[in-house]
Amino acid sequence: MSASSSRPIVRIDAEGRSERSDLLPTEEPVEFRLAGVPIAVLMRTPGHDEDLARGFALTEGIILRPDELAEVRRLPGRDGEGRYELVPVDGLHIDPEQFRRNLYSTSSCGVCGKASIDAVRVAAPPPPDGPFIAADRLIGLMESMRAAQAGFKETGGLHAAAAFTPDGAPAGLREDVGRHNAMDKLVGFLAARGLPMGEMIVTVSGRVSFELVQKAAVAGFGLLAGVSAASSLAVDLADELGLTVAGFVRPGGFNLYTHPRRITG
Amino acid sequence: MSASSSRPIVRIDAEGRSERSDLLPTEEPVEFRLAGVPIAVLMRTPGHDEDLARGFALTEGIILRPDELAEVRRLPGRDGEGRYELVPVDGLHIDPEQFRRNLYSTSSCGVCGKASIDAVRVAAPPPPDGPFIAADRLIGLMESMRAAQAGFKETGGLHAAAAFTPDGAPAGLREDVGRHNAMDKLVGFLAARGLPMGEMIVTVSGRVSFELVQKAAVAGFGLLAGVSAASSLAVDLADELGLTVAGFVRPGGFNLYTHPRRITG
Repeated sequence: MSASSSRPIVRIDAEGRSERSDLLPTEEPVEFRLAGVPIAVLMRTPGHDEDLARGFALTEGIILRPDELAEVRRLPGRDGEGRYELVPVDGLHIDPEQFRRNLYSTSSCGVCGKASIDAVRVAAPPPPDGPFIAADRLIGLMESMRAAQAGFKETGGLHAAAAFTPDGAPAGLREDVGRHNAMDKLVGFLAARGLPMGEMIVTVSGRVSFELVQKAAVAGFGLLAGVSAASSLAVDLADELGLTVAGFVRPGGFNLYTHPRRITG
Repeated sequence: MSASSSRPIVRIDAEGRSERSDLLPTEEPVEFRLAGVPIAVLMRTPGHDEDLARGFALTEGIILRPDELAEVRRLPGRDGEGRYELVPVDGLHIDPEQFRRNLYSTSSCGVCGKASIDAVRVAAPPPPDGPFIAADRLIGLMESMRAAQAGFKETGGLHAAAAFTPDGAPAGLREDVGRHNAMDKLVGFLAARGLPMGEMIVTVSGRVSFELVQKAAVAGFGLLAGVSAASSLAVDLADELGLTVAGFVRPGGFNLYTHPRRITG
C-alpha cells in the first residue's frame, strides 16, 4: 500500500475517449485498539500509520502527553488494512470502554456522531507565548509546503499539514486524503521525536475548521496557517484558546483572524 | 444564524496592515435526537437543517425510505445551536440505542470512531439504469453549479452538492462547510419532495471520497461527478455498487473512474 494507487480510467477530452491508468490518492481504513478493544476506525491514506496513531491519541485526548504511549504495535490484518494496538507505558491504565464513549461523544468531525453539543470543546494546554514570524516569511512557508507535497503532485487529491520553525526551516510534512489525518500524522511525527510544537508554525493545505483548531491547540501549537478560509467556529475557538489563525495565506497577503501579535513586521 | 458570519480580521498585504470585517463560512453544531436520545452531533453550516436531518437519516441508514420520517421537529436550544427530534411515522419504532451503536460502528468519515472495519460498507439499493448524459453537458453542469454557489462566493469556504436532470435542468443545490453535509442536505431536499434521484446527476465541488460515494449510492443516484480527485476506495466502492464516478470535471475534459456507459457521445 502506498499514498497513491493506480486504477484504469477513461479519459474524455478534446481528443475524444481514451483508456489509460491514473494515480489516485489511496484511501483505506485503519483500526486502532486499546487493550484489544477496537476504539476507532479511520479512513486514511496508508503510510506513517504509527505517526497517525500517536497524533490521534494525543489530539483526541486518549493520552495527555506523548510519552504516555509506549508503543504502536502492528497487528495482523487483511491485505491493505492496518490494525494497530496502542500500548500505554507500564502502569498507565486507559479504559477502552470509557474512551470509546468519550470519542463517540466528543470527536467533532463534519459527519460523525456525538452525544452532546456541550462536549464538543476539548481541553487544550495553555497557549505558548510564540512563535513569532514576519508576514513575508509566513507566505513563504506556504510555498515551501506546496513544493514539498509529493503526493498531491502525483494525485491532485491529498491534503497536507507541515510544521516549520520561525526561521523557515521545515520540521515535518505529512499528507493524507483526510485533512485531520494529515494534522494527526504531523503531530505524531513531531511528538515521537520530542520536537517542541509550541515553538513551531503549523500550515495546512486547505480550510481551517473547528476540528483543525482543536487538534492544533491540543497539540500545543501557537500559530496555524491555512491556504483557504477559516470557519466562524474555528475562529471563535482559536480566539478562546489563544491560538493565532491565518487564512487565505497566498502570495500577496493573508487574513489574520485571531491573536495577530504573533505576526511581526 | 446564516451561512456566513461577520468577524473582525486583520488583513496583511502589500498595503500593510488593516483592520476590517470579513464574512466567514458559519460552522455550528447541530444535534439530532431519536425518541429523546441524542444520536448524533454534526458540525454544519446553519440553514436547511431539516434537509440535513432527512438526508442524514437516509444516507446513514436510520430510515430506509424517505417516507419513514414523519417530521423533523425543532427543539429549544441555546443561541446558534440547533436541536432536532427525528420523528418516525406512526407505528415505526427505531431503537435509538441500536442506532447509536450502528452509527458509531459504521459511519465512515475521515476522523470519527468506528468499531469494525468490516462494518464500513453500507447497504445500497440496486443501481439505477441511468441517467445518461453527454460529456459536454456534464462539464456544463459543473459550470452551472459553480455559478449558483452563493455562499462560496461570499466566503470562499463552503462546499456544494447539486442535482441536475440529464437535460441540464437544476433540481437542487446545497452548501455547507462539510462536504458530506452538503450532500445530505441535497438528498434530504430531494427526498422530501419525492424527486427521483435515480434519474439525476449529482455534482460535488470537491474531491470524491469513500463516504460521498456511499451517500450517493445509498440515496439512489447513478452518476456522481466531482471537480477534483476521486480516492482509490471511493472508486472501488462505486465500481462494486454500479455508480458512475467522474472526477476532475473541468472545462476541456474529465476522468471517468467507473461504469463509463452512462456518458454518451
